[in-house]
Amino acid sequence: MADRKIVEIVCVGTEILLGNIVNTNAQFLAKECAALGLSNYYQTVVGDNAERLKETIELALSRSDILILSGGLGPTQDDLTKEVAAKIAGKELYLDKKSEDNIKAIFKARGYELTPNNIKQAMIPKDSIILDNSNGTAPGVIIPYNDKYMILLPGPPGELKLMFKESVEPFLRSLSKEVFVTSTVKVVSVGESICETKIMDLIENQTNPTIATYAHDGEVHIRVTANAETEEEANKLIKPVVRELKQRFGNNVYTTHNDVSLEQAVVDLCKGANLRIKTVESCTAGMVAARIVNVPGASEIFKYGLITYSNKAKRKLTGVKKATLEKYTAVSKEVACEMVRNIDIGPKADVLIGVTGYADSNDESVPAGLVYIAVNVCGKTRVEEYRFNGDRNKVRTKATTQALVLVRECMLEYLSEMTFRDA
Amino acid sequence: MADRKIVEIVCVGTEILLGNIVNTNAQFLAKECAALGLSNYYQTVVGDNAERLKETIELALSRSDILILSGGLGPTQDDLTKEVAAKIAGKELYLDKKSEDNIKAIFKARGYELTPNNIKQAMIPKDSIILDNSNGTAPGVIIPYNDKYMILLPGPPGELKLMFKESVEPFLRSLSKEVFVTSTVKVVSVGESICETKIMDLIENQTNPTIATYAHDGEVHIRVTANAETEEEANKLIKPVVRELKQRFGNNVYTTHNDVSLEQAVVDLCKGANLRIKTVESCTAGMVAARIVNVPGASEIFKYGLITYSNKAKRKLTGVKKATLEKYTAVSKEVACEMVRNIDIGPKADVLIGVTGYADSNDESVPAGLVYIAVNVCGKTRVEEYRFNGDRNKVRTKATTQALVLVRECMLEYLSEMTFRDA
Repeated sequence: MADRKIVEIVCVGTEILLGNIVNTNAQFLAKECAALGLSNYYQTVVGDNAERLKETIELALSRSDILILSGGLGPTQDDLTKEVAAKIAGKELYLDKKSEDNIKAIFKARGYELTPNNIKQAMIPKDSIILDNSNGTAPGVIIPYNDKYMILLPGPPGELKLMFKESVEPFLRSLSKEVFVTSTVKVVSVGESICETKIMDLIENQTNPTIATYAHDGEVHIRVTANAETEEEANKLIKPVVRELKQRFGNNVYTTHNDVSLEQAVVDLCKGANLRIKTVESCTAGMVAARIVNVPGASEIFKYGLITYSNKAKRKLTGVKKATLEKYTAVSKEVACEMVRNIDIGPKADVLIGVTGYADSNDESVPAGLVYIAVNVCGKTRVEEYRFNGDRNKVRTKATTQALVLVRECMLEYLSEMTFRDA
Repeated sequence: MADRKIVEIVCVGTEILLGNIVNTNAQFLAKECAALGLSNYYQTVVGDNAERLKETIELALSRSDILILSGGLGPTQDDLTKEVAAKIAGKELYLDKKSEDNIKAIFKARGYELTPNNIKQAMIPKDSIILDNSNGTAPGVIIPYNDKYMILLPGPPGELKLMFKESVEPFLRSLSKEVFVTSTVKVVSVGESICETKIMDLIENQTNPTIATYAHDGEVHIRVTANAETEEEANKLIKPVVRELKQRFGNNVYTTHNDVSLEQAVVDLCKGANLRIKTVESCTAGMVAARIVNVPGASEIFKYGLITYSNKAKRKLTGVKKATLEKYTAVSKEVACEMVRNIDIGPKADVLIGVTGYADSNDESVPAGLVYIAVNVCGKTRVEEYRFNGDRNKVRTKATTQALVLVRECMLEYLSEMTFRDA
């Protein structure tokens, strides 16, 4: 790991300093660089100010090998990043014909009038590498500086991300002889501290692969990263560790793939078992359904959902009995269970998820955060009580995640019983 | 404005450098400081490393008046912020009895065992101001340093935000003789560049109040900020500008309050007119309902919603005709309109919102981003076609916002007709 390079992320934009936008570019770049095995010690945000930008870049160049700058490549007078970086590198700007043609073509296709300041975006520092922008007008550039590099990317996240994947990642990979491979073991129903305790021996003895845990919206992600000369070798290093983690956490591991989300795991389970899901939501009001539909191709297993926010809707749409509501109130195990009975409205489903709870409370008699989630898999119902902390939207978000966790558990139970019966 | 202070934000945590979390603390602090009239020129992220943290703090102290640091106040050996900042200020740490008792009480209440490292959180630099943590165990501190201040806040956003509001904001206000007041004029259905062009004369002549526009998830927010010696005077400066903006953008302004969201504006309109909303969603699959229910007290006007993802669900749950689906397909004006007819299932509603579209596409014949939104207010239906850019979730998010925009427009039309008829 002698050649491990240090990267520094500099985001340029007064709108970040004013707090008008969250700096998601910094997170994206940090995550990608970590996955490539680059070390990142500093991230800086600086405004659209030439002097402060110059100082920031010079400081970063003094302590890091690779600078990734985002923002300030646009057409306005405020956009200074290219000009300042070129000056530091002692390179003049020239008009790049191909970039100019590209900008003209985009304006033509959109039917917009091309104003002269847009051509500024085609001005490129001499001796730099031009990065095509597949999602916008401003090209990126890589400016070599002694044995270091300044990589300038556009600010809009959609343009930055695509340009990084298409051009910057291959460039960064070419700088290193090492290959880094990561597997993320994603665990639910286990708190972060318990999770860490359970694998402390592995963490303490880690060298290659490295192991780190991250709490993530009610889940714990254990990231296993190995480096080697080839991808195959790195994979070989990862495999036994991932196997060990799966053994320790059993069914609480829902995936070992970096890009698979909890909702994806649920949808995949349904597809594999040829089961269809229906949601009946009160306090989450559509959030569980919306997460399931996040997954491309969810239409195969998700046909419809109900949002029964009022008592009357619970009765009319899901057949919850008036007597049950009166005896136990809308936020109760009993009502949650009746919400997930298959009644004769709309197409039948095999897996039903029901959520009812208090997202918040203005009244001491109403316990904010009390949520009941019921899951019915092919006629068998399980119901659980939860007490979530946080404000209205935190409670709703936690309940949504927990609904997905519970439905996954119930489906696994069902599938293992099926296997047992078949055997 | 001679006493306008410069604030610098330093977030401490290796998890941010690894890209595991988005730095929402920086955005929160930046926004709050801007609202207080503080200038912010730099934001830095540094890891849990004593030497680099020391360098970062020293650099920040050399160029700013007030440092706000978040993170690194916890119980583990990694948590270094207090120790490093105290050393820079030349202050020793002492055990604060009150903070210790508070930590013990929290552990007792939660039924957790108190480990010795938790007491580290009660160690306070001499001569500093202790900030109570109403949401956790680690207190914050304000360490005076010459004529400057280091303000140390805990990393968890829920703790940081509450501590800022309860203790830091009053402290920062006490440092300045100026009062800053902001009004945010929130505009929909007008693009940012057109919006800016329409008020360029106001922007160019701005002094006090200042005027700035920000694009924000399909909306444009125009922030008007005035400073004066009293809040009353600042309000007097803002009023005529806000009035002018409302005149220029008319009904496209949905609020002039900083904290009112688009969904809040829709819910308020419904409450005012005593109308109830029902949602029927296909591609957004619950996102419109979930946003409406974001608003506390939404239960008064939102009773239920349907998620009709499949054709069969559209037929069975909302009475869309088989012939209409066959002739026009599920993504059509005609189907959108039939989705918002009041059919005899569940309680009746006065305002119905229907959304159908293609969130993405694997097939060239399917135009990704094509969405139809229909709104029915008391029997009168309006339907619009949209073509949204972006990936699956971007399209769904944009469609959700647009549904709220359209329902607001339709309700305003309805209400103005009512007024006309009544007159």
